[in-house]
Amino acid sequence: MATDASDAAGDGEGDEPPAAYETLLDQYRRVTNVREAGGLLSWDQQVMMPEGGTPARSQQLSTLSSVSHDLLTDDAVGSALDELDAAELTAERAAVVREIRREYERADAVPAELVEEMSTTSSEALSAWEEAKAESDFETFAPYLEKHVELKREYAEHVDPDRDAYEVLFEDFEPCLSLERAESILADIRETLVPMIEEIRASEVDLTTDAFTSLGTYPADDQEALCRDALSTLGYPWDRGRLDTASHPFSTGTTFDARVTTRFDEADPLGSLLSTIHEFGHATYTLGLPDEHYGSPLGQDRDLSVHESQSRLWENHVGRSQAFWESFLPTVAEHFPQAESVTPREAYETANQVYEDNLIRVEADELTYHLHIVIRFEIERALIAGDLDVAEVPAVWNDKYEEYLGIRPENDAEGCLQDIHWSHGNFGYFPTYSLGSAMAAQLYAAIEDDVGADALDEGVREGDFETLHEWLTDNVHRHGARYETDELVERATGEPFTADAFVEYVTDKYGSLYDLDSV
Amino acid sequence: MATDASDAAGDGEGDEPPAAYETLLDQYRRVTNVREAGGLLSWDQQVMMPEGGTPARSQQLSTLSSVSHDLLTDDAVGSALDELDAAELTAERAAVVREIRREYERADAVPAELVEEMSTTSSEALSAWEEAKAESDFETFAPYLEKHVELKREYAEHVDPDRDAYEVLFEDFEPCLSLERAESILADIRETLVPMIEEIRASEVDLTTDAFTSLGTYPADDQEALCRDALSTLGYPWDRGRLDTASHPFSTGTTFDARVTTRFDEADPLGSLLSTIHEFGHATYTLGLPDEHYGSPLGQDRDLSVHESQSRLWENHVGRSQAFWESFLPTVAEHFPQAESVTPREAYETANQVYEDNLIRVEADELTYHLHIVIRFEIERALIAGDLDVAEVPAVWNDKYEEYLGIRPENDAEGCLQDIHWSHGNFGYFPTYSLGSAMAAQLYAAIEDDVGADALDEGVREGDFETLHEWLTDNVHRHGARYETDELVERATGEPFTADAFVEYVTDKYGSLYDLDSV
Repeated sequence: MATDASDAAGDGEGDEPPAAYETLLDQYRRVTNVREAGGLLSWDQQVMMPEGGTPARSQQLSTLSSVSHDLLTDDAVGSALDELDAAELTAERAAVVREIRREYERADAVPAELVEEMSTTSSEALSAWEEAKAESDFETFAPYLEKHVELKREYAEHVDPDRDAYEVLFEDFEPCLSLERAESILADIRETLVPMIEEIRASEVDLTTDAFTSLGTYPADDQEALCRDALSTLGYPWDRGRLDTASHPFSTGTTFDARVTTRFDEADPLGSLLSTIHEFGHATYTLGLPDEHYGSPLGQDRDLSVHESQSRLWENHVGRSQAFWESFLPTVAEHFPQAESVTPREAYETANQVYEDNLIRVEADELTYHLHIVIRFEIERALIAGDLDVAEVPAVWNDKYEEYLGIRPENDAEGCLQDIHWSHGNFGYFPTYSLGSAMAAQLYAAIEDDVGADALDEGVREGDFETLHEWLTDNVHRHGARYETDELVERATGEPFTADAFVEYVTDKYGSLYDLDSV
Repeated sequence: MATDASDAAGDGEGDEPPAAYETLLDQYRRVTNVREAGGLLSWDQQVMMPEGGTPARSQQLSTLSSVSHDLLTDDAVGSALDELDAAELTAERAAVVREIRREYERADAVPAELVEEMSTTSSEALSAWEEAKAESDFETFAPYLEKHVELKREYAEHVDPDRDAYEVLFEDFEPCLSLERAESILADIRETLVPMIEEIRASEVDLTTDAFTSLGTYPADDQEALCRDALSTLGYPWDRGRLDTASHPFSTGTTFDARVTTRFDEADPLGSLLSTIHEFGHATYTLGLPDEHYGSPLGQDRDLSVHESQSRLWENHVGRSQAFWESFLPTVAEHFPQAESVTPREAYETANQVYEDNLIRVEADELTYHLHIVIRFEIERALIAGDLDVAEVPAVWNDKYEEYLGIRPENDAEGCLQDIHWSHGNFGYFPTYSLGSAMAAQLYAAIEDDVGADALDEGVREGDFETLHEWLTDNVHRHGARYETDELVERATGEPFTADAFVEYVTDKYGSLYDLDSV
């Protein structure tokens, strides 16, 4: 694939950048450091902090967030950007300025009082959501959701009154991927998956679905040891990371220290294992960012869809492949002798079964998952556009589950109250999950083209992931935020970013698994 | 003892403070939050961080430190302080303004470039010190020590050109305890201990010195379980703290989350146990600060000597008492069956033995410890005053060890290079350790007066520490930095802060242990 040796040569270290560039980058490094400090405080809160620590931690996080906002919108940043307007910059430096300018302009456009109000609303909405979910009572949460919708519209109006509000909100997570592109990818995914899932439900193929759950329990400590072995096998550098337990698994950190968390269900070791591999994928991205650009946009992840592409590539294309199970099953049996009788095929089928009646996004399989996302995306778009009232959300939600997935929630706790994201006012975030899957498929297909599908498969089967790491670092990680999303994908894969590779991937894989006619 | 119900009444919540007071306190809360974030990052670095994380962590800590400096010296703080100059404030609010003003003036007086240079020198000096210590080669470290001395003199000159430079430096750790008072306390300690230790060396009493070390090894995991039991027994609130392992034990955090660390020597469980109790003492102080004043000087520890008084009170007056061993030995035997044969008296004697030939401060006993401190204090005073050249330090160090302790280091690694502090440029820090011991003795004597020595001893013997916690919270912790050190001690004990109680304590205890004539 394309590398950028040619234009990198234009950024010779001999050319001194303008003083304003140094000022800008220095200040941005401070912003990064304050944000990373906040990231560590959040990690600690979820992993290490005793419960009593909350009141001080909330204040610390709130101060760090306001300090990083103040540093980013400092007059010195605005002046430096103005000065650099007309400057001749190397491509690399121009990318740095472009990225910082984008962040600065957005932060500068929004009044501090509105930021404050959104933050307060999030705190209140979180408590209300927790209560509403526990009681399965949407009414309790509705006023806060309404408030969030109002504030987010106002926010978008400040950023750009001439553009679609949802588009503006989406850019908080995907600063440079067009919503149009995202919509078209989600539409393709929906159009492929809705009929495919119907067909799978009608399929008479008898897949193994309980290779592990039928064999007794799996103590958490042993699962943790297994996850550590999996991370070592996949190439996790323990001198730059840790594995810990958290109730909602996540990954966080810097290229020097990218940590992974997981959680354990003693009935089923697959969940912790695949979730660990998922978070490992996120961590590989962070670890692959160039050390020397720490603190600069060149050392920063591009956006959430690229991040999610890395987690899903490792989780789905590697961790859910038959080749992986051929290689890794003996390690599972070392920790859990009861699994000695499981065959790679049984493990593979279990890891790839499509659930018939799962209503919960975070428990979904690789296919139905995206319909959970599409539903949320459609609802939040309509909410922000004013085409849907908050009060209508539960009914619309349930109807869409029936339409797309053929199942209907019996209450709001297992329906529109299941996810925390809207209590944070995060509209525009959910789509990045599906975009990540589509990008993962496109990247994986490109790697197969580059190194040969059989050779790649053989590597996974032998537990040799070096080629994969090298390709991803070279084509994705090391660029940081230098290229915009489209360009990054196109440079890496030779094609614009679409759902085509994903459609092909699921059609092949699930067509074969479920012996579907349409394939 | 004195409580301040009377003047607290003057701070009725009904009186609205001036707006400038709110501005000042709000900004100071931000400073606190940024500092506490830095504290958590340091804790993580020493306890959790993978080794690869250092480059980013150093930058994060440096940014947080510069941000908190900028927040503290913000023009808004200066203006608010000016406005409050003539304001009528309640005693409590006046104390808040006094404390913030003191910090502001010091931070504001020192040019940012000097702060930067001191910080750079510390980084370079740390590497040089590590190398010098490993090679036992003072020459390698000498230029950095010289640089530190110069910079610190310059620093003191900026803060106050009319005062003794060491006095100014000492105030970084003891902002409101006079150096004169500190010197007089240290002199009394030295004059008591030098002859006492000589007498102890001549004593023919045959103390048990190896109650535990003679009985095999003590696995680290079991020691950790023992330390957890000790913390629970002493009343550590696990919902507001954690115990972890660190190569240099420390305690850190806020009143909501005060963490303790320890380390393990498998040959000897006493070290980890007493160090855990020491750090527990620090944590009790932090935990006893008033929740409602988090972020304000009223919710802050007074200074290092008060902090150290709390750690040493718990370590020495409780953890090294015979009553404690009568109560706690069965718990030790639960974890280590080999210790079933140890008697409380043997444990007590072992924990209180005075070493004949220990050159290392951090391994010293309760008596010789202070001579290690006195030597460092005398040397750093002379260095800053210009009465001693850096090149003379090793010789003077060795002579003083011979004079005060009757032993002579064979090389600089076990001599003047043993401690890290001077590589940080921390002059004025060491004395706080001995001041803490003196204060601990004075507080403990006051508690004995208040509740009765026998009743207090009985409480310790029964593992009931409630009275002790209550007294310390009531008389020390809950005041935060409201009173200056002298006033705090005098309100708590009814006497000015002196070494008298310490002298009496060690004279009684060690006189009896070693059957000394002088007693």
